Amino acid sequence: MNQPSDNPGAVAQHCAEFMLSGDEPARTFGFILRRAGPGEAQLEMTVPDNALNVFGTCHGGVLFTLADTALSIACNSHGRQAVAHHCTITFVRPVQPGDRLIAHALERSRTTKSAIYDCAVVNAATGKVVAEFRGQSRTIADAMPHKG
Amino acid sequence: MNQPSDNPGAVAQHCAEFMLSGDEPARTFGFILRRAGPGEAQLEMTVPDNALNVFGTCHGGVLFTLADTALSIACNSHGRQAVAHHCTITFVRPVQPGDRLIAHALERSRTTKSAIYDCAVVNAATGKVVAEFRGQSRTIADAMPHKG
Amino acid sequence: MNQPSDNPGAVAQHCAEFMLSGDEPARTFGFILRRAGPGEAQLEMTVPDNALNVFGTCHGGVLFTLADTALSIACNSHGRQAVAHHCTITFVRPVQPGDRLIAHALERSRTTKSAIYDCAVVNAATGKVVAEFRGQSRTIADAMPHKG
Amino acid sequence: MNQPSDNPGAVAQHCAEFMLSGDEPARTFGFILRRAGPGEAQLEMTVPDNALNVFGTCHGGVLFTLADTALSIACNSHGRQAVAHHCTITFVRPVQPGDRLIAHALERSRTTKSAIYDCAVVNAATGKVVAEFRGQSRTIADAMPHKG
Repeated sequence: MNQPSDNPGAVAQHCAEFMLSGDEPARTFGFILRRAGPGEAQLEMTVPDNALNVFGTCHGGVLFTLADTALSIACNSHGRQAVAHHCTITFVRPVQPGDRLIAHALERSRTTKSAIYDCAVVNAATGKVVAEFRGQSRTIADAMPHKG
Repeated sequence: MNQPSDNPGAVAQHCAEFMLSGDEPARTFGFILRRAGPGEAQLEMTVPDNALNVFGTCHGGVLFTLADTALSIACNSHGRQAVAHHCTITFVRPVQPGDRLIAHALERSRTTKSAIYDCAVVNAATGKVVAEFRGQSRTIADAMPHKG
Repeated sequence: MNQPSDNPGAVAQHCAEFMLSGDEPARTFGFILRRAGPGEAQLEMTVPDNALNVFGTCHGGVLFTLADTALSIACNSHGRQAVAHHCTITFVRPVQPGDRLIAHALERSRTTKSAIYDCAVVNAATGKVVAEFRGQSRTIADAMPHKG
Repeated sequence: MNQPSDNPGAVAQHCAEFMLSGDEPARTFGFILRRAGPGEAQLEMTVPDNALNVFGTCHGGVLFTLADTALSIACNSHGRQAVAHHCTITFVRPVQPGDRLIAHALERSRTTKSAIYDCAVVNAATGKVVAEFRGQSRTIADAMPHKG
C-alpha cells in the first residue's frame, strides 16, 4: 500500500479501501464502505440469501463478520497494521433477508499497543440495534503491508 | 423436521444434518460435520480462498462462523430450538489458507432456558488451538421447526 | 421501597440510593454516588488499602465490583428490578492506591426483557480509562422489592 | 518471593500462598486455598454477610473477585508474573448467604505471552454451577516479584 499524505482522513480512507479490496468474505456478503475516518468505520450490507441459516434468518456468523470487518478497518485506520484479538457479540434482534444493516465501529480507548472498539449493527429501516459488538485490537506493525 | 426415536444420539445426529442442510455460510466455506451428540458438535473446515482477508490469512469472521455453527448444532442437539445469544472469541494464532481446522463445541452448563458452550478451534496438523470461543444459547421453542 | 412520583429522574435517584444503602461491598470499598438518571449511574471510589492485591495495585475484582455496581444501579433506574447476567471487563491500565476513579454506566440498548450497559472506569486525575466494562441485564420483576 | 526448587507443583503451591498472603479482598471475603498446581487453582468461600447486595444475595462483584483471584493464582503458578487482562463472567444461578462455593480455575490454552483460563464457580452443596468465568492473562515478567 502506498502511504498517502499527512492527512489522517485520507490515510483512513486509503486504508479502508485497501482492506476491503482484498477481503473475500466482504465480497461474498456484499459489504459496502459508507465512511472511514481515524478510529472509525461504517459498513453497510443488505442481507443476501447466502447469509441465511436453516431458520431463514441472517446467520450470526455473518453479523459478526460484518462487525469484525468494520473493526478491522477502524483499527487499521491510523496507518499501522493491527488485528482483532478478542471480540464479544450480543445478538439483540433477529435479522431477515433483505434487511439493510449498518455497522458503525468507533474507537473507545487506545494505548500504544492495543485499542477497544464498539460496533453497533443497526437495522437501517427501523433504527433498532440488532447486534452489539465489542472488540480489542493489537498493533502488530508500524506500517501497513503491501498487498500480497 | 421429523423427530426420530427416543435415542438421544439419533436426535442429535438428525438435528445436526437438518441444521447444516440449510446453512448457507456453512456451504460457502465448506463446513463438514464430523460428529454430533447430545450437547456436542464437531465441524471441520479446510480454509478455502474465499475465507481470506487482505493479509492473506483466514478472516476472523469465518473462524467465528465455524465455531458459532458448531454451537448452533450443539445447542439444538436436544431437539428443542435454541439460538446463540451472546458469544466471545479470542484469536490465539493466525490461520493460513489450506489449514485444516476442527471446531469442537461442548456443553458446559445448562438450565431450562439457557446453556453455555465452549468451542475450541484447533489446527488438525499441529494440534494447537487457533481460537477459543464461548457462547450462550437460549431455548426459544420446545421442538425443532420444519424447514421453511 | 416506596415508589416516588412519575418523575423518571426522581425514580432513578431513589432507586440508586436504595441500591447503595444495602450494598455491603460498596460500603467496604467506599463507593460514592455521583449521579443517577434513567439508564445511567456514576460512582466514585478513591482506591482504599483494602482493595489491593499482592502486587500493591488495585485488585481487578474491586474494579469489576465498582463497574458492576454502577451497572446495577443503572439497570434498576427505571423502577423495575433487574440483575446483571453477563459481563466482560478489560483491564487497560494499572491502578494505584489513592487513585480516584469514576465509573460511568450508560445504557446502550434496551428491549423489554434485557439491556446492555457500557461502563468506563476513568482515573479522575489523568482522564485516562483504566477499565472498560460491558454488561447485560435481565428484567426480573415489574417493580423494585422492598428492602429485606 | 524466594523461588523454591525445580518441582513445578511446589512452585505453584509457593506462588499461590504468596499471592493470597497479600490479597486484601481475599482476606475481606474469606477466600481459602484448596489446591494449587501448574496452571490450576481452587479457592473456597462461604458467602459472608459483607458480600451481599441490597437484594440479600451474593454481589456479582464478589463472585467475580473469587474467580479472578483463582485465575490470578493459576496464571502465576508457573513462577512468572502474569496479570488478568480480559475477563467475562456469566451469572447462572443466584447465591445465598452461607452458601459454600468452590472456584476452580484451569488453564485452557497458553502461548509464550498469554493464556486463557476457565473458572467455574460451583455451589458445593448442590454441585450446580453458579457462575462461569473465562479470563485471559498476559505474562509481564520472567519471575515473581518480591512482596513490597
